[in-house]
Amino acid sequence: MSELRKDPIINRWVIIAAERAKRTGDFYSAKPSPEPAASSKPCPFCEGNEGVTPPEIYAVRKPFSTPNGRDWLVRVVPNKFPALAIEGNLDKKGKGLYDYMRGIGAHEVIIETPQHLSSFTPLSEEHIRLVLQTYQLRMADLKKDTRFAYGLIFKNVGERAGASLEHTHSQLVVTPITPIRIAQEIKGAKHFYDYRGRCIFCDIISQEIEEDERIVINDEHFVVICPFASRFPFETWILPKQHLTHFEMIPPHILPSLAGITKKVFQKLEKALNNPPYNMLIHTSSFTMEETEYYHWHIEIIPRITRVAGFEWGTGFYINTVPPEDAAKYLKEIAV
Amino acid sequence: MSELRKDPIINRWVIIAAERAKRTGDFYSAKPSPEPAASSKPCPFCEGNEGVTPPEIYAVRKPFSTPNGRDWLVRVVPNKFPALAIEGNLDKKGKGLYDYMRGIGAHEVIIETPQHLSSFTPLSEEHIRLVLQTYQLRMADLKKDTRFAYGLIFKNVGERAGASLEHTHSQLVVTPITPIRIAQEIKGAKHFYDYRGRCIFCDIISQEIEEDERIVINDEHFVVICPFASRFPFETWILPKQHLTHFEMIPPHILPSLAGITKKVFQKLEKALNNPPYNMLIHTSSFTMEETEYYHWHIEIIPRITRVAGFEWGTGFYINTVPPEDAAKYLKEIAV
Repeated sequence: MSELRKDPIINRWVIIAAERAKRTGDFYSAKPSPEPAASSKPCPFCEGNEGVTPPEIYAVRKPFSTPNGRDWLVRVVPNKFPALAIEGNLDKKGKGLYDYMRGIGAHEVIIETPQHLSSFTPLSEEHIRLVLQTYQLRMADLKKDTRFAYGLIFKNVGERAGASLEHTHSQLVVTPITPIRIAQEIKGAKHFYDYRGRCIFCDIISQEIEEDERIVINDEHFVVICPFASRFPFETWILPKQHLTHFEMIPPHILPSLAGITKKVFQKLEKALNNPPYNMLIHTSSFTMEETEYYHWHIEIIPRITRVAGFEWGTGFYINTVPPEDAAKYLKEIAV
Repeated sequence: MSELRKDPIINRWVIIAAERAKRTGDFYSAKPSPEPAASSKPCPFCEGNEGVTPPEIYAVRKPFSTPNGRDWLVRVVPNKFPALAIEGNLDKKGKGLYDYMRGIGAHEVIIETPQHLSSFTPLSEEHIRLVLQTYQLRMADLKKDTRFAYGLIFKNVGERAGASLEHTHSQLVVTPITPIRIAQEIKGAKHFYDYRGRCIFCDIISQEIEEDERIVINDEHFVVICPFASRFPFETWILPKQHLTHFEMIPPHILPSLAGITKKVFQKLEKALNNPPYNMLIHTSSFTMEETEYYHWHIEIIPRITRVAGFEWGTGFYINTVPPEDAAKYLKEIAV
């Protein structure tokens, strides 16, 4: 018998249907999608090919190196095919029922290492810390622009998860509107706070630690869980124990711990699911929102090992064939 | 320069970024995904293999044929791996923050023809009418069960759209909760009605006919458009001109016209995109809602020729590289 579970934050229901996993063809083969045949083009993200990308916006560089040359550790460049352009004003318009505006925003690529790696897990914790710090600095910089409302940092890994380049990288897209998915999350958290006077994410952390059924890692600063109403098999969230609204406000002394836990979580997922395609998303609050007692930044990881079909598109209801309790137990036990 | 457009019903923004289409690898190859190697198992949906499926719930049969034997035209059976089970009570429970209930509902498969066809477009208009009528009858029957709140009829075609069997079929999933996606749509339509006293879908139809920029087909009873804020390239909606809240209430004299237009739309999409994988979704109101002046049933078709990546999952913001004006013009001109 399957079970219906409600996400307590945005009231989205999911169907946990373990028996449906018996259906053939539900999972992609455990292997990652085949890499495209070695291209004759050089990888634009590798050291030595800096000239292939647009000029860098920011970089963590070795001493005495020069911008757009070699000898960097982390490099940020504009996306060559940006979804949104940085120059211009929004020029908001309406025509009958329809509202539209020019596609103004930012679309940056964070190249996580000069080496051609398809995963960031071989990087040292200190190197991963530099990547996380770069995210923070870029967010803080773009936040100053009053045309913008929201910044999403995300990572697509593997062709099935939408990655078009193999070399490990993340993206930052800044939009002039707070996206609907985030607005719903903020609204749900605010509603809970208005009613009970507490942060719902803090409450989730307490309940998860107490029940100890869906915990993958629990350390001093973070707790990693497979959420109660997981939409996808092996969906995994990293929740900071310290209540903070904005990702870019994490103080420097916490960052090494986040680097360590992020590395560990992805090592576990890569081992458990044989280098799955995945999306990683940093959920943080909108630019104009102050630090609040009700919204709590966190990271959501979605392994993309199942297909999303008509039922999910039509309803927003997800069918998940792996109960999060089973996924968490499995991930917890994997040694890395 | 890309453009941001707002869906007037649910306030979801999309980015129409035609320039991004230059990026390689954004579209799947135009060919449908390869069929799995001919299996040694017989197709459970073909005539003669009726014993392979669970016993039929309903069928349109030739005279003198017997249930679960040959000689049928359309056949409805329970899904062999149902996401929700028909027997039992909901047994709603809470544990701390979390709400859950047993997975009660219905999950039926509508086998559209006894022949092994991978598309329904070769079927006659009269045969398609029988399929649509079957949808209506199954919805009306399941609606009587007071445990249930909503019925979604959908079609997954092609492996990339989540289909696990090739033989053309649709599905009906009935849930004990109105799904969040539908609740948002109903809420948005209600909000518009409260403010202006008109149905937003009726207004969209008027504006689209007047502007004539996104129309694929406009006949006596239906208008087919690529919507202003299309999430996906070649997203196509079939909107009935007659305001009706529930799909199952379409009167019999309109059904042949819907059969004809549905056949024509899919012939165009199949020709334009070389038999793309797609999802088709019938948006209708919830079981408990009366006929209202603000909600208007319709069909949404999503060709699945692009990947959904981290940005879309994280924000609910979609990036679409084909402006709906271009898609509509292209589809309009295709002769079928």
